[in-house]
Amino acid sequence: MSSAPAARDLANAIRALSMDAVQKANSGHPGAPMGMADIAEVLWRGFLKHNPANPHWADRDRFVLSNGHGSMLLYSLLHLTGYDVSLDDIKNFRQLGSPTAGHPEYGDAPGIETTTGPLGQGFANAVGMALAEKMLAAQFNRDGHEIVDHNTFCFLGDGCMMEGISHEAASLAGTLGLGKLVAFYDDNGISIDGEVEGWFTDDTVARFRAYGWHVIPNVDGHSPQEVKLAVENALKNGDQPTLICCKTVIGFGSPNKQGKEESHGAALGEEEITLTRDALGWHHGPFEVPDDIYQAWNARAAGAKAEADWQARFEAYRAEHPELAAEFQRRLAGELPATFEQQADDFIAQCQQAMDKVATRKASEQALNAYGPGLPELTGGSADLGGSNNTVWKGCKSITAGDASGNYIHYGVREFGMTAIMNGLCLHGGVRPYGGTFLTFMEYARNAVRMAALMHQPNILVYTHDSIGLGEDGPTHQPIEQIANLRMTPNLSTWRPCDTVETAVAWKHAIQRGDGPTALIFSRQGLPCQERDDAVLGTVAKGGYTLLQTGEGQPEAIIIATGSEVELAVNAARALGEQGRNVRVVSMPSVDAFLSQSADYQEQVLPSAVRARVAVEAAIVDYWYRFVGLDGKVVGMHGYGASAPAGDLYKHFNITAEAVQQAVDSLL
Amino acid sequence: MSSAPAARDLANAIRALSMDAVQKANSGHPGAPMGMADIAEVLWRGFLKHNPANPHWADRDRFVLSNGHGSMLLYSLLHLTGYDVSLDDIKNFRQLGSPTAGHPEYGDAPGIETTTGPLGQGFANAVGMALAEKMLAAQFNRDGHEIVDHNTFCFLGDGCMMEGISHEAASLAGTLGLGKLVAFYDDNGISIDGEVEGWFTDDTVARFRAYGWHVIPNVDGHSPQEVKLAVENALKNGDQPTLICCKTVIGFGSPNKQGKEESHGAALGEEEITLTRDALGWHHGPFEVPDDIYQAWNARAAGAKAEADWQARFEAYRAEHPELAAEFQRRLAGELPATFEQQADDFIAQCQQAMDKVATRKASEQALNAYGPGLPELTGGSADLGGSNNTVWKGCKSITAGDASGNYIHYGVREFGMTAIMNGLCLHGGVRPYGGTFLTFMEYARNAVRMAALMHQPNILVYTHDSIGLGEDGPTHQPIEQIANLRMTPNLSTWRPCDTVETAVAWKHAIQRGDGPTALIFSRQGLPCQERDDAVLGTVAKGGYTLLQTGEGQPEAIIIATGSEVELAVNAARALGEQGRNVRVVSMPSVDAFLSQSADYQEQVLPSAVRARVAVEAAIVDYWYRFVGLDGKVVGMHGYGASAPAGDLYKHFNITAEAVQQAVDSLL
Repeated sequence: MSSAPAARDLANAIRALSMDAVQKANSGHPGAPMGMADIAEVLWRGFLKHNPANPHWADRDRFVLSNGHGSMLLYSLLHLTGYDVSLDDIKNFRQLGSPTAGHPEYGDAPGIETTTGPLGQGFANAVGMALAEKMLAAQFNRDGHEIVDHNTFCFLGDGCMMEGISHEAASLAGTLGLGKLVAFYDDNGISIDGEVEGWFTDDTVARFRAYGWHVIPNVDGHSPQEVKLAVENALKNGDQPTLICCKTVIGFGSPNKQGKEESHGAALGEEEITLTRDALGWHHGPFEVPDDIYQAWNARAAGAKAEADWQARFEAYRAEHPELAAEFQRRLAGELPATFEQQADDFIAQCQQAMDKVATRKASEQALNAYGPGLPELTGGSADLGGSNNTVWKGCKSITAGDASGNYIHYGVREFGMTAIMNGLCLHGGVRPYGGTFLTFMEYARNAVRMAALMHQPNILVYTHDSIGLGEDGPTHQPIEQIANLRMTPNLSTWRPCDTVETAVAWKHAIQRGDGPTALIFSRQGLPCQERDDAVLGTVAKGGYTLLQTGEGQPEAIIIATGSEVELAVNAARALGEQGRNVRVVSMPSVDAFLSQSADYQEQVLPSAVRARVAVEAAIVDYWYRFVGLDGKVVGMHGYGASAPAGDLYKHFNITAEAVQQAVDSLL
Repeated sequence: MSSAPAARDLANAIRALSMDAVQKANSGHPGAPMGMADIAEVLWRGFLKHNPANPHWADRDRFVLSNGHGSMLLYSLLHLTGYDVSLDDIKNFRQLGSPTAGHPEYGDAPGIETTTGPLGQGFANAVGMALAEKMLAAQFNRDGHEIVDHNTFCFLGDGCMMEGISHEAASLAGTLGLGKLVAFYDDNGISIDGEVEGWFTDDTVARFRAYGWHVIPNVDGHSPQEVKLAVENALKNGDQPTLICCKTVIGFGSPNKQGKEESHGAALGEEEITLTRDALGWHHGPFEVPDDIYQAWNARAAGAKAEADWQARFEAYRAEHPELAAEFQRRLAGELPATFEQQADDFIAQCQQAMDKVATRKASEQALNAYGPGLPELTGGSADLGGSNNTVWKGCKSITAGDASGNYIHYGVREFGMTAIMNGLCLHGGVRPYGGTFLTFMEYARNAVRMAALMHQPNILVYTHDSIGLGEDGPTHQPIEQIANLRMTPNLSTWRPCDTVETAVAWKHAIQRGDGPTALIFSRQGLPCQERDDAVLGTVAKGGYTLLQTGEGQPEAIIIATGSEVELAVNAARALGEQGRNVRVVSMPSVDAFLSQSADYQEQVLPSAVRARVAVEAAIVDYWYRFVGLDGKVVGMHGYGASAPAGDLYKHFNITAEAVQQAVDSLL
C-alpha cells in the first residue's frame, strides 16, 4: 500500500515541469517557479477554492502571479490541478499559438486571471479583485446568504516590490481594509542584476505595516507547515490585507544555480537539469509526472463539489431574493440592462435639442447623471481630481473600509495604481469602473492603459483638461502627444467629443463596449453644441462624419477636426462658404470607430479624390498626416504649450479659425 | 530704533504675495505657499547656501519644490531673496511669456532648479541631485579640499507621497545613503479631493524609516524653532537622507479657508484676502512688501560672500590639483573633451569597416566601450536589466552608499524613479547619465521622459528589446506603439539604428546633444551591417538617407525602413532591382534628425513626385503615413504581438522582405 505523495514531491512536479519547459523552449524563467513551488503547493492544495472545470465560477478565489515571468509556475498548477492545459501545451511553452505564452496572457489558457509580466501590476490587479469582492459582498450578500465570499491570493517578487505601483496599490488596499487579500512576497534576494542588497534594502515588513497591512514575517517558504500556518493566520484577519513574507531560494533544487541570478531568466541546461533531478529525488523523465502525483494534485472533484455547494447556496438566495439574484447574474455576466440603449438614445436626442454650451467634462458629468441611475455596476473614481474630472455624479456614494456598498472610489493621487486596480475590477467582473485624471497624467498610468487594451477589459478612462485649453497650469499639464499615443494603442477606443451630443455618444459607446477599454477625452473649457439634423445625429457614433458642408456634391476641401477644435473648423468653413467655397467639415471624435466602418462609408466621408485636406487639433500635428496625406496641412501643436489663459494660448500657437481658413485657402 | 522683522512677518510676505498673485491671475494654488511659508523662511534664511546673483554657482544648495502647484512659494522666495524675479513678474503670474508660470518651469526664471508639477517627480529629481553631489564629491574632493559640499532640500506634499515614484526614489535614496538630502513633508491632511484620511492613511514616518531614512516626526511646521532644530538634526546626519515631517495648516492665515481644500487650488477671493491680511497682521496693500521685510530677506550680500569663499577654496584646490580643477570646470560646464568628435568618427569608420553582425544592443555596448574611456562624466545604469540592456561596459564601477566614486548606478526595478533621478543628475550637472530598460517599460517612466524633453536635459535613454523581435517574452514585452510615442514627443531625439554603424552614430549624437534627451532604441536580435561608401556614411547622421538604390536618377519607388527592418527593405529592393525596378531604400534611424535637415535635403532623399512609397517597421503602422501619404503602404504591426521565437513572429505578422516587395509591386 503506497502512502500519499509528500508535499515536497508534489512541489517537485512544478519544479520539474518548469525546468523542462524552459529547457525545451530554451527561453524562460525557471527560478521563480522552483523557488515558489512549495508555497504554491500549500496554497493550491490546501486553501484555494476553485473549480478547474469552470474557471468562470463567480465565487472562486482569485490567484494572481504578479511576478509573471514565473509563468511556468502557473501553467504547472493549471495542468496539475486539472484545468484544460495539456502536457502538450506545457511542452509548447513560449511557442506560437500555444496557450502557454512567455508570460501568462489573460484569455490564452483557462485559469489565468490576469496578464502579468509588467512588474507590480498584477499586485494592483489583485487589489482591484479583492476590492470588487468586497463591494459585491456589500451590495449583494444578505443575512444568512454569503453568496460573495472569496479570497484573492497574489504572489509577488522583489521586482514587484521595487516598482512604485506596489506603493500605490498597497497603500490603498490598507486604507480600504481589504481583509480578503493575501499576498505572498517571494523574498529570494535575487533580481536579474544579481543580489538585490545592492539596490533594494527596504524593510518590507515595516513598510507594509506602515500601510496598515497585517504582515507575517520570516516564513520559511520551503516549509509547508510554516506556510500553512501563515495562510491560516492571514485568513483569520478579515480587517486587513495580509502580506506573508516568505524566504525562499530561487531555483530551489538546482545544485549549482539555486540562490543565484543564473537561475532567474535562462534555461538551466541539460546537465544541470539532470543534477537537479537527482538533488530533488525526482526520478522521472522530462515532462513525466507519475500518476499518484497527478492524482494528489487533481482538484476537479473537490472543485466540482465546491461549486455545487455554492450553487445550492445561490439557489437558496435566489428563492429568498429573486430580483437580487437575477441582478447578480446580469452583473457577473457583464450584460447591460435591456433599457440602456433606448435611454441613451433618448438622452443623446435631448442633448441635441438642448444645445447646451458647456465644457465636455461637464457634459460628461451630465451623461453620468443620465446613464448612472440605471447602471448600479458603474463604479466611479478619480486620482484626487473628482471635482476637476467631473467624475462625481448625483448618485455617487463613497466606498470606505467600513462600508463598501457604494459606487465611488477615492483613489488618491495614484494614477497608475488606479488604472491597474480598475483593470482588476474589470477582470473580477460585476462592476464597471471608470476613473479620471488629467489627460497628461494618463502617462503615469500608461502601461496599465495598454494592459487593459491587451486584456480586452472594458475599462473606462476619463481624461479631462485635454489640451492647451486648460490654460494657466502650463506645459507640464498640457497634453500634446498624448491623444496620438492613445489612438495608436491597439484595441483602445479613443474619443474626443466636441460637445454634449458627442460626449453622450462617447459614453454610450464606452459603456456598451465589452471587449476593450475606452479613453474619453474632455475639455476644461466650454464648447458650443453643434447643430445636427437626425440624419447627421445618426452618424455620430461612426466616429467620423460630415458635420456640415458649405456646398453640394464633392467638396473642394475637407477640414477634419476633433473636440474643442470643431468649433474652429466650423467657423473657418462658414467663412470659406461665404466666399463661395464648397468646404466640408468632418468631425472625427473617434478615429478607431471611423476606421472600423466600411470602406464605402469612409470613402463617402473622406473621398480619396479630395486632396485639399486640413486637420485641426490642439495637439501634436504628426498624427493627422495619416488623413491629410502628403498634400494636406495640419493646424496644431509643434512643441510644448505654455502657461497663460487658454484664449491667449490658442492665439499664440495660431490655432484659430483664421489659421484653418488660411490653410485651406493655401491648398485651393 | 526698529527691531528686525519677526520670522512670522517674513513668512507672511510669502503668504501675501502668493494670495495676491493667485487672486490677480484668478488661477493657482495659494494653500501650499501659505502653509509652508514658515518652513521656507527658516530654510531659506537660516540654511540655504545660494547666491541670487549667480543661480549657476556649482556648489550652491539645491532647492526643489516637488509640490510644484505651490509655485508662488518659490517665486516669492526668489523675488524676496534677490533673484532676477521682479514684482512685475509676480504680478504677471501665469500670464503668457512671464517667467512665473503656473508651475515652476526650469529655465523660465533664475533659481528654478527643475520643472515640477507632475507629482512625485521633483522629489526624484532631488534624489538625483543629491546623488550627483555625492558622486562628484567622491570623484573630485581631495584631502583638505571639499569643493563639492552642498545639500539638496526638497519640499513635498501628500500628493507626492501617494505617487508610486516616491517609493522608488526614497527606497534608492535610502540604499545609497544620500546623507545630504533633506526632504520636508508638508503634512497638511488635505489634497484636492478633500481630507486625505479617506484615501491616504500611511504611517509615513514608519514607511520612510523602512527605507533607511532618518525621519524627524511631528514637527510643527509653523514653529520656526522646531523647524530650525529639525534642519540642524538633519544636517548632522551624513549617512542617511532625512525626512522632516511637518504638520502644517494649508492656507495658513485664511480665517475661513485654512485647513480646507478650498484654499488648495483656487484664489481665496478679495473678501477672504482682506480677512486674511487682518488675521495675519499684514497691513500692506496688494503686492506691497515693506522695505525692512525686503532687507531681511535679501540674500545677495550673503550669497556673494558664500560664493566668493568657495571661489577662494576652489583656487586653492586648483593650485594643488590643476588638472582636476580644469576637469571639474569642464564637466560642470557640460563640455565634451575636445578629442571626442574625432574619436567618435574614427570608431564609426571602424564599425563600417568591420561589418560586424550583432544585435544593436550589443553594438551599443561596443559604442560605450569605445566612447566611455574618454568620458568620465558618463554615468550608466539600468532598471535591473544591465545584462539585457548591455549598459555595462568595461570601465563600469558600481556606485554604493559607501563608495560613490564609480560611474554605474544599479537603479533596481524602478523605471520611473530611474528616469526622474537621471533628470536630476542632468539638472545638477557634472555627470551625463544613461539608463536602460526594455522599450515597452519606457511606459512606466513615460512622464519623466517627457519632462527631460520639456526641460531640455540631455538624458540618454537606452531602450532595448525594441519589437516583436524580442520573441518569446510575448505581447506584454513587445513594443508596438512606443516608438511612435517617442517620435511624437517634442524635443526628444529618437534613434532606432539598423547596425553597428548607425548605433555608433546615434550614440555620438546622444552624447553631443546638449539641449534635450535622446532615446536610443536597440534590437535584441542580431542584425547585419549595411555597406556604405564614404559619401553614404557621411549622411547617416542626418537621420534619414539613401542607403542604396537599384537604379539611377529618380527612383520608381522608395522603401523607408528603420532598425531591424532595414535588412528586409534592402532584400526587397535587391529583388525588385533584379526585376529591373529602380527602387531606393531610405534608412531613417531618426525621424527628428531627418526633419531638422534642409527642405532641399529632405526633397533629395524623398522626392515629392515619388508617391510609390512603402515604409516597413515592426511597430504600429499608423506613424508612417506621415511619410508614405495617402497613396503609400506600410508593412508593420496592426495589433499586439505574441509569444514565440522571433523568426516565427516576423513570418506570422507578415513583416518580411517578400511582403515589402509585394507592397512595392502593388504600387507600381
